[in-house]
Amino acid sequence: MASGAGPEIERLMALLSKLPGLGPRSARRAALALLKRRDQLLIPLTHAMQDAADKVETCTVCGRLSTQNPCPTCADPMRDDAMICVVEEDSALWAMERVGAFTGQYHVLGGLLSALDGVRPEDLRLDGLIQRVKSGRVREIIMALPATVEGQTTAHYIADRLKSFGNQIAITHLARGVPVGGELDWLDDGTIAHAFKSRR
Amino acid sequence: MASGAGPEIERLMALLSKLPGLGPRSARRAALALLKRRDQLLIPLTHAMQDAADKVETCTVCGRLSTQNPCPTCADPMRDDAMICVVEEDSALWAMERVGAFTGQYHVLGGLLSALDGVRPEDLRLDGLIQRVKSGRVREIIMALPATVEGQTTAHYIADRLKSFGNQIAITHLARGVPVGGELDWLDDGTIAHAFKSRR
Repeated sequence: MASGAGPEIERLMALLSKLPGLGPRSARRAALALLKRRDQLLIPLTHAMQDAADKVETCTVCGRLSTQNPCPTCADPMRDDAMICVVEEDSALWAMERVGAFTGQYHVLGGLLSALDGVRPEDLRLDGLIQRVKSGRVREIIMALPATVEGQTTAHYIADRLKSFGNQIAITHLARGVPVGGELDWLDDGTIAHAFKSRR
Repeated sequence: MASGAGPEIERLMALLSKLPGLGPRSARRAALALLKRRDQLLIPLTHAMQDAADKVETCTVCGRLSTQNPCPTCADPMRDDAMICVVEEDSALWAMERVGAFTGQYHVLGGLLSALDGVRPEDLRLDGLIQRVKSGRVREIIMALPATVEGQTTAHYIADRLKSFGNQIAITHLARGVPVGGELDWLDDGTIAHAFKSRR
């Protein structure tokens, strides 16, 4: 990305272009916006990033990113630790929390099993989940994993690992169907077929 | 953007969402990518931003962003100071430098005249340009401004301000026409009409 902007600015652009959703062109625009808005954007964002780098760690209980360990959710006695919602990433946890319907605990796997990408069970935060189930308080595991091959493979694998706990715990999945506000015409056939089979 | 991610991470997301091209959702993805790739991305980007905030300033001659003042282009005796290419922003200068066809000097206005946005002549880096022309070495001013109403208004205004220098200096504009590789079918009528009138 040689652009005659000088090594410091070019390094900034190169790093910005590694963010998801930014390509070389939008990274240049972002770098320029940062440099033009030094006091309103560049310096506050630098501080926010430094702060995050210094303070954010992974909760040793649930695996989420937090400045506290255990995280506020794991430490909250008002949350129901008989229910664990299993998610791929923090972003799914944030989405569940925005909805606000779930009052139990979480477990962040940190990825999904994938033969293609070489992600094996030992690469995920699975032992911790088994440990939490073994503690004996868990009654329901809610699989909030993506409706993709990797998501479903991972859900299956976890269900298999938890088989030995028999009917002490229920394993549930987020319902599949037509999204709220969704037009049938815009949906893929698999979703429509699933929604039809699961009609109620 | 309450997401249960904690104040530090939410502040990071809120600031990231102010970058051009990032909305709330892509800012969440960017924040997660930064936190997950702490050593490869978050820390190097934080350092690059701190470095830019500390070192990058505006060249007092041409107005471009640089860690040197005067900037390497203004200080380069090999560049032809009889030609000044007038651009809106550093991004246009970087684009010209990527092309590599121009060997003269630049002048970065820092914006365009706009009645709508309340940008007046005194908000642009215009006096510096007049000063440079007055120094007597300039023979050509190349207007590399956007082909928009604001771009053309600004070019007109500058030409007017430079009228007193009469035929000592030539004022030229980037040619308008069909972009290289451009299909006529995809172009707006104004561009086609312009390209037709300027056929050669």
